[in-house]
Amino acid sequence: MKQLRGFASDNNASVHPVIMEAIANANIGHAVGYGDDTITEQAQQVFKQCFGQQTQTFFVYNGTGANVIAIQALTQSFNAVVCANTAHINVDECGAPEKLSGCKLLPIDTDNGKVTVEQIERYMHGFGFEHHAQPKVVSITQATELGTIYAIEEIKAIADYVHSLGLYLHMDGARIANAAAALGCSLADISINAGVDVLSFGGTKNGLMFGEAIVFADAKLAESVKYIRKQSTQLHSKMRFISAQFVRLLEDDLWLRNANHANNMARLLGEKVAAIDGVELTQRVDSNGVFAIIPKDIIEPLQQEFFFYVWDEYRSEVRWMTSFDTTEEDIEQFVSSLQKLQK
Amino acid sequence: MKQLRGFASDNNASVHPVIMEAIANANIGHAVGYGDDTITEQAQQVFKQCFGQQTQTFFVYNGTGANVIAIQALTQSFNAVVCANTAHINVDECGAPEKLSGCKLLPIDTDNGKVTVEQIERYMHGFGFEHHAQPKVVSITQATELGTIYAIEEIKAIADYVHSLGLYLHMDGARIANAAAALGCSLADISINAGVDVLSFGGTKNGLMFGEAIVFADAKLAESVKYIRKQSTQLHSKMRFISAQFVRLLEDDLWLRNANHANNMARLLGEKVAAIDGVELTQRVDSNGVFAIIPKDIIEPLQQEFFFYVWDEYRSEVRWMTSFDTTEEDIEQFVSSLQKLQK
Amino acid sequence: MKQLRGFASDNNASVHPVIMEAIANANIGHAVGYGDDTITEQAQQVFKQCFGQQTQTFFVYNGTGANVIAIQALTQSFNAVVCANTAHINVDECGAPEKLSGCKLLPIDTDNGKVTVEQIERYMHGFGFEHHAQPKVVSITQATELGTIYAIEEIKAIADYVHSLGLYLHMDGARIANAAAALGCSLADISINAGVDVLSFGGTKNGLMFGEAIVFADAKLAESVKYIRKQSTQLHSKMRFISAQFVRLLEDDLWLRNANHANNMARLLGEKVAAIDGVELTQRVDSNGVFAIIPKDIIEPLQQEFFFYVWDEYRSEVRWMTSFDTTEEDIEQFVSSLQKLQK
Amino acid sequence: MKQLRGFASDNNASVHPVIMEAIANANIGHAVGYGDDTITEQAQQVFKQCFGQQTQTFFVYNGTGANVIAIQALTQSFNAVVCANTAHINVDECGAPEKLSGCKLLPIDTDNGKVTVEQIERYMHGFGFEHHAQPKVVSITQATELGTIYAIEEIKAIADYVHSLGLYLHMDGARIANAAAALGCSLADISINAGVDVLSFGGTKNGLMFGEAIVFADAKLAESVKYIRKQSTQLHSKMRFISAQFVRLLEDDLWLRNANHANNMARLLGEKVAAIDGVELTQRVDSNGVFAIIPKDIIEPLQQEFFFYVWDEYRSEVRWMTSFDTTEEDIEQFVSSLQKLQK
Repeated sequence: MKQLRGFASDNNASVHPVIMEAIANANIGHAVGYGDDTITEQAQQVFKQCFGQQTQTFFVYNGTGANVIAIQALTQSFNAVVCANTAHINVDECGAPEKLSGCKLLPIDTDNGKVTVEQIERYMHGFGFEHHAQPKVVSITQATELGTIYAIEEIKAIADYVHSLGLYLHMDGARIANAAAALGCSLADISINAGVDVLSFGGTKNGLMFGEAIVFADAKLAESVKYIRKQSTQLHSKMRFISAQFVRLLEDDLWLRNANHANNMARLLGEKVAAIDGVELTQRVDSNGVFAIIPKDIIEPLQQEFFFYVWDEYRSEVRWMTSFDTTEEDIEQFVSSLQKLQK
Repeated sequence: MKQLRGFASDNNASVHPVIMEAIANANIGHAVGYGDDTITEQAQQVFKQCFGQQTQTFFVYNGTGANVIAIQALTQSFNAVVCANTAHINVDECGAPEKLSGCKLLPIDTDNGKVTVEQIERYMHGFGFEHHAQPKVVSITQATELGTIYAIEEIKAIADYVHSLGLYLHMDGARIANAAAALGCSLADISINAGVDVLSFGGTKNGLMFGEAIVFADAKLAESVKYIRKQSTQLHSKMRFISAQFVRLLEDDLWLRNANHANNMARLLGEKVAAIDGVELTQRVDSNGVFAIIPKDIIEPLQQEFFFYVWDEYRSEVRWMTSFDTTEEDIEQFVSSLQKLQK
Repeated sequence: MKQLRGFASDNNASVHPVIMEAIANANIGHAVGYGDDTITEQAQQVFKQCFGQQTQTFFVYNGTGANVIAIQALTQSFNAVVCANTAHINVDECGAPEKLSGCKLLPIDTDNGKVTVEQIERYMHGFGFEHHAQPKVVSITQATELGTIYAIEEIKAIADYVHSLGLYLHMDGARIANAAAALGCSLADISINAGVDVLSFGGTKNGLMFGEAIVFADAKLAESVKYIRKQSTQLHSKMRFISAQFVRLLEDDLWLRNANHANNMARLLGEKVAAIDGVELTQRVDSNGVFAIIPKDIIEPLQQEFFFYVWDEYRSEVRWMTSFDTTEEDIEQFVSSLQKLQK
Repeated sequence: MKQLRGFASDNNASVHPVIMEAIANANIGHAVGYGDDTITEQAQQVFKQCFGQQTQTFFVYNGTGANVIAIQALTQSFNAVVCANTAHINVDECGAPEKLSGCKLLPIDTDNGKVTVEQIERYMHGFGFEHHAQPKVVSITQATELGTIYAIEEIKAIADYVHSLGLYLHMDGARIANAAAALGCSLADISINAGVDVLSFGGTKNGLMFGEAIVFADAKLAESVKYIRKQSTQLHSKMRFISAQFVRLLEDDLWLRNANHANNMARLLGEKVAAIDGVELTQRVDSNGVFAIIPKDIIEPLQQEFFFYVWDEYRSEVRWMTSFDTTEEDIEQFVSSLQKLQK
């Protein structure tokens, strides 16, 4: 079997060898289930060092789980969540946020995946009017689903505005590592320190086998979360195997090396494809995703060689993601195939 | 750190080394996410060989996920699910079945974790009466939460009765391997072949790192399941790592060896503790659990040495579970501690 | 068409003429919708006079609506609600409480519809244990679905116990008027003043056309209720027509006269049927319901003449309800029919 | 108290005297509850005559109830419902559709409250892709929340398109009477006969006290509805009082006379205000609503005299609704006040 390293998604990547080793190392003897073990305790300490002593972190299986638990922790069912129309919670979770939280999602049309205070403002009305779902959370994605990145000041501006109205700011950080790497700042600087109340911290897209974390800026916000996690089917029994991955990811800056590499590969891929006639980049390549319009008739032949997703069939836009294990050779082969088809 | 192998739960056990190897072997190159990979295809074939060609299997993260997806697949929100009062869905999932399915649970009082046709019959009324939640599913657990086991004929009798009324039979098989091992029959014989419509097939308690399977007796019942799984936050992106575990578990009868060992260890433990003055077994030791009443004042001291759970604090009943990695030495040490405290 | 006044249910009764008049009187000109009208303001004052100035009342369509809004106001989805197995929320609302609140119901087996502190105590464990739905509400019914009544001291004892654990006490008062009339005390004395946190106050069964009220002991508990009511589809646009009924019901003690009459008729009916051979009362006749075991073979013929419900088909138990418009003649005819069939 | 007949909403109107009489006439003796009475049977016949023998109708309390039951009947929780961004289900039900159905709403931006096949088409993708909520229902409003009306051919075109994809067409007909009156056709012609699968049929806004109806084009679609209605808290016990109103509304074309009058009054109001300097109509006055931009500074003073709602505070747009009881004198007074303020 040919070993593919394609550009479909960073979650098509393998598990980083160092993470695999951490998992193997955790497999010794018995450990109390559901998180009352020493490795999970260690992981929580690592997160506190990373995000602050007042934070509290919960480990879950996946990003959808992290997001819907975060939303449930901040809302009642009559609330509304404002987000970009491109947000994962809006388009890629099969309605899980609505089903589990009962809340309405209020999507903002956006060209680049980022929302602004001005756009959010349009939804900030009807408070106290019982006929309208009451806005309580603004959710932003960092890096966005379109590979773009919020600057720290942009996040702070949104946080300040959101807090001034008594709302909470949630960040879907499935690719927060890529954003921090690109901006050259810490994970906390672009999330908790910038005013984010709850962060869905991604692991699987950055080299883990499974597992995401939910970081609450203040433990007070998290009082009910252990019940919500369990009722939302996201509590793992053999928790140490998630925790061990996170300990290893955050130690020695593995998260940063992985993210930097993926970002670099995306930049390279972006430069190479942009030079091909008939290929037009549609977004800045700020993190590890490349979005481009290519001729409709070459999409399928190219997918035969390297599987990837069509992003917008109406305008023949495709998405190519890089990951920690993407090689320059992968990119050369891919670009070569694209060039041949495009002739 | 002292390596504990206690009796708290079979999910406190480690990952079986052969399973760990299977995971490592799956970690090569990229694979399409969410189950469209070759290992998952292979796993689905293995399940068809095990349970029949007409069956369809879905892989999920954990038992709660498996159960609530199974229930959702069989019900509408105005339905009711009949189960033993001791059922995991009734007492150990923090209300996840009610929340995700909207259904009412109708618990049957039972002394040994098993329900009978006669007990189910008491709930089979009010059909067509819109004020009552409409019974649609009977859920049984094999092996039960009390370590007891349904004979094949008992399952068939329940299935026949349930089907005669247009209801479905769900089996929570978190420990189905232990039951099949104890009865000396195949996994299918005590589930799908006996009339079970949907089976939650357990992996984590029998040596996996994470992952359970939902087996539908007929693919027609499963048409909506892929959406339900996603919306219930139970779809893993790097699916191959769950699938690889299941392939290995079912091949070469690893499931059986593991279960047999755990059962044997429980039998041994049961015999030894039953011989101690002041210890009274409360259930037959049919699979890998031992339930006993012991003096209240020795519970805490014993937990200091070997962590385990109190089952019923009112009558000072405790639960001890064995697993694939329990050793005779573990049992001897435990029994020795118990004896000392009991003097 | 023969005008039936049967014994099927107090909600089969007509609308009291004085209530009908109040409705007609409210039908003048326009009024702001959804409760911002002067009649609703007046109704809220009437409820404050009745239950105390610190209370807050919301008007809804029906008892199921009142109960599920009350539960939602007091819980999060991972909570549990303890109630009698006979409770309306448990058996007669088609699972609405589970669906709308997400909570688990924990039913207590009871012979007379009443629960005791000792019975509740059995469920008061597992606090802080995330695998168990967390008890947060105890719900009692006054008068019970079996026509029995809690004494004030019994309610106080439950309230004290419940509050000592940080739980809330809900009362389903679909027939609270009958209970207060029977005990000769005020509506508040057996509810809010006795420690009830939220009361579902019944109207329809005591002479209204439609409408129930939810009375919160403290307005602080009710901060989210207006949104919950709307989202639960229970907010009426032409609210004045509910409010006008309640103003009239509580003024001049119409509620009391209606309830006293219904209670008296039940007592009379109970005495007369108890004297018939083969008829055995199964509950005390404390309010407006009569429960009796009668020969199976006369149930259907009797239902042909006077429609009523079988309560427990296993033991041939039936239920006969009286209402504000039941006459002595109705009872004589009914008893006469019963006597003839029983010969 | 000054008797206001304002322009805030058609649900601020009184109950039509003929309807009040029908209610009074229904108040004789006992009737079996929950719809098993002769008046409800009669009402169901009246609806069959109106919409066809194959249809099935359910009576509920209000429009939100009708809409969420209709949606639940047509969907599973992983489905999506496409509607105009102005739809009542999207903006005026506090998230009830999401909470009760679990479905995602996909709102279409629209200037006039109407959606087109082309606009719907943009959402018709991702079928079979489990990450996306699966579109299953398109919901249109007739007359729309902006007072505009779909022509029969427009509805048919949407219905044909929707059905060709296996979806259902729901119509929120809170003001269907106004639409039919304006188009001069039958109620069925613009709903069931044009391809609508389920119709929320409005009563309260056209002279009823309370009560809406849900009309299913085919009884087969409605098999679970009685349970859904009960679980959604929308089943009235004293059903005859809703049914009697509907019998009267549909007999002798009371619905039509009421709607025609309201429409005529809106047309008159529209003409008069359009002639005032500084007042700009923003929508066609096709039914009983008038939408206009007026100077911001006169809104509050005008509301002091006649309460009405601001529709869009950003552009200073207001809404004025007429009803069956609006008089020419009301309009003259209102226009006169507006003129004075506008000077």
